[in-house]
Amino acid sequence: MKLALQTNEELTKIHQEAVKQYEDFKSLGLQLNMARGKPCAEQLDLALGVLEALRARSEFANSNGDDCRNYGVWNGLPEMREIFSKMMEVPADLIILGNNSSLQMMFDCISQGFTHGFGGCQPWCKQEKVKFLCPSPGYDRHFGVTEYFGFEMIPIPMLKTGPDMDLIERLVAEDDTIKGCWCVPKYSNPTGITYSDETVRRFAALKPAAKDFRIMWDNAYCVHDLTDTPDTLLNLYDECLKYGTEDHVLFFASTSKISFPGAGVAALGASKSNIEDLKRRITTQTIGPDKLNQLRHILFLHDINGVYSLMQGHREILEPKFHIVEDSLEHELGELGIAKWSEPNGGYFVNLDVMNGCAKRVVSLCKEAGVILTDAGATFPYGADPNDSNIRIAPSFPPQEELRQAMHLLCICVRLAASEKLLSERY
Amino acid sequence: MKLALQTNEELTKIHQEAVKQYEDFKSLGLQLNMARGKPCAEQLDLALGVLEALRARSEFANSNGDDCRNYGVWNGLPEMREIFSKMMEVPADLIILGNNSSLQMMFDCISQGFTHGFGGCQPWCKQEKVKFLCPSPGYDRHFGVTEYFGFEMIPIPMLKTGPDMDLIERLVAEDDTIKGCWCVPKYSNPTGITYSDETVRRFAALKPAAKDFRIMWDNAYCVHDLTDTPDTLLNLYDECLKYGTEDHVLFFASTSKISFPGAGVAALGASKSNIEDLKRRITTQTIGPDKLNQLRHILFLHDINGVYSLMQGHREILEPKFHIVEDSLEHELGELGIAKWSEPNGGYFVNLDVMNGCAKRVVSLCKEAGVILTDAGATFPYGADPNDSNIRIAPSFPPQEELRQAMHLLCICVRLAASEKLLSERY
Repeated sequence: MKLALQTNEELTKIHQEAVKQYEDFKSLGLQLNMARGKPCAEQLDLALGVLEALRARSEFANSNGDDCRNYGVWNGLPEMREIFSKMMEVPADLIILGNNSSLQMMFDCISQGFTHGFGGCQPWCKQEKVKFLCPSPGYDRHFGVTEYFGFEMIPIPMLKTGPDMDLIERLVAEDDTIKGCWCVPKYSNPTGITYSDETVRRFAALKPAAKDFRIMWDNAYCVHDLTDTPDTLLNLYDECLKYGTEDHVLFFASTSKISFPGAGVAALGASKSNIEDLKRRITTQTIGPDKLNQLRHILFLHDINGVYSLMQGHREILEPKFHIVEDSLEHELGELGIAKWSEPNGGYFVNLDVMNGCAKRVVSLCKEAGVILTDAGATFPYGADPNDSNIRIAPSFPPQEELRQAMHLLCICVRLAASEKLLSERY
Repeated sequence: MKLALQTNEELTKIHQEAVKQYEDFKSLGLQLNMARGKPCAEQLDLALGVLEALRARSEFANSNGDDCRNYGVWNGLPEMREIFSKMMEVPADLIILGNNSSLQMMFDCISQGFTHGFGGCQPWCKQEKVKFLCPSPGYDRHFGVTEYFGFEMIPIPMLKTGPDMDLIERLVAEDDTIKGCWCVPKYSNPTGITYSDETVRRFAALKPAAKDFRIMWDNAYCVHDLTDTPDTLLNLYDECLKYGTEDHVLFFASTSKISFPGAGVAALGASKSNIEDLKRRITTQTIGPDKLNQLRHILFLHDINGVYSLMQGHREILEPKFHIVEDSLEHELGELGIAKWSEPNGGYFVNLDVMNGCAKRVVSLCKEAGVILTDAGATFPYGADPNDSNIRIAPSFPPQEELRQAMHLLCICVRLAASEKLLSERY
């Protein structure tokens, strides 16, 4: 029963019913938070072994022979770079380790483009205008960084295959003020899609007018599969080698959603020439990253197989939560024709598109009833969703029972907002 | 017997003797490094308890109730801010914690001045010219940061009371392109002096022409006493409050030389208005610092008394090493009138001034014989010591016996270079 096809009387009844359910829910006085992609405590317990490491003094000096407690080793421990090399599919000698935040590594790269420029080009701060391509919906913190530096953000529609490459190819070829493009290529935040092989190839083959154009390839969910039929992402680094475009890309990943969000290890991969640019800044900025934390991770994970088996544990906790979200949506909204959602094979989000003009209303209704969702619009540059339809659902943090309740409320609010809107259009 | 007063014959003899001793030493084929202020392994062992913490899950949630493994808490855990508040003498609510590097926090502050400006002023990148005052000899990495951003560095002579305040007062009052001044106010790197009360008061009372002038107050050695008569530093923050100049200063410290250089906790203190500026950048740059490492430090140190007792242990290891350096210099160079050196009450360095024009020669002779010292000139902006006389001795890292050997070589090289110079002036 499509909502839009109901008679006025039926629609009014549905609306009243939704309002009643909403008020009932509100009276429960719940306090739930689904705003951010935060792992839950059970997930964090999976990596407790990280903290068990580093007890015997002999452990501090392994690796390249340095005492890992002391200063030095600007690009991080070889064994940890090896693990990231496998995750990111970039050679280990082109990997630089940071501290706990890949976002910080991205910010610092953008900042370096702003203050010093890339590849010998003029720093972005000296250029009249700087624009960044922002496939949308996308990751709000990416957009936050570009907004902080005052770059103009150009939204790029997300298709099932990834960003609209026709548009990107045309824009970067004709406009040399376009200096970058944000990408979450696997289990994209929030849409959950993985870029198609063709999309990856077209990124590698881009012919930007700007020599200092950089793709920010944030592979945050590279090993975050949640089904038996995981997506596969073509290796951009290898494709770039074919076109000689490896300078166009900066690769990022972290163990934030593998070990600990607040105390993991972040990494950056880059071409030899980009590494030279980055090295000068990084060795001026710090005498080295936290190597003890890298060592903890090495002792716990051993190698990439340690990562895979840990991720299996994450899947066991997360997969049922994603099913709860998808089942709720299907069960409570499936026939109404007022919402579409993703069923991703991995990552951290379910992408919900409600009727145009209803997302803000839904998020605000939920908030009033005690369930915090990501702000409507946050997944678009400047927080402006042109259709006001996109809502990001982050199922990882709440316990299953709370998630069920929160999803029930969300579905009530979607029905309430949709019927409200349809009625207002009729009268 | 002053070397300069010797006859030509005597001087030639002294020179030949030094050359002979030098060649003998060289044939030993030693490999010693005194280049950096790195703590030795025994010092690092003092803080092993940091790594013993964090085993029971109940420990992760103490503090403000957050799970410290997860994202969040942009300014760090309250208990650790409390410890830094005592060390830095700045209120805990004005302290922001970083990861393992105070240098990185300084770099990022300078970078923020460059990209966004302070106090609503134009970003430094938009200003025609930016200059920084560099009390010299000083810390090479400070100068490295200012050089990286292309600022003009103005050397300021270091007196026994701290930087030449007459000069600083005049320069900042008349030149609004002077945007900052580097300071290591206690046990200064490398001179070892502590700023006098009057110097601190005059810093607080500065009337800079530039509204966005910022003093970089790097209190790296605030608790690093090495004698029973430690220096005391007047509290700049309190003094600034008297003059209403608290926006002029950014305060820095870290546990790099308390717990672990590579895995400590860094902190920044700032006025309320500066904190607002910094918060916008930091919360865009990262979702929070490594709180588990902060928690480790809290569980090990408990409070400021834990810091004091730990520093007592450092003193027991370092004090004898400083005595070896000072005794060698006194014993081998004391009567020759060719060198002066500091006898600091704390910190990490002994400052050696050799005859003008001899520092590079001495450092290069030492290197050739297997002892690496800090590059001559490194303690001055652009690596340019106008007198070519300053050498920084870092006694902390080598074991005592190696330190004795290295000092012996250094003294030989000072005699060799001085006699060589005096001879060349006579013939």
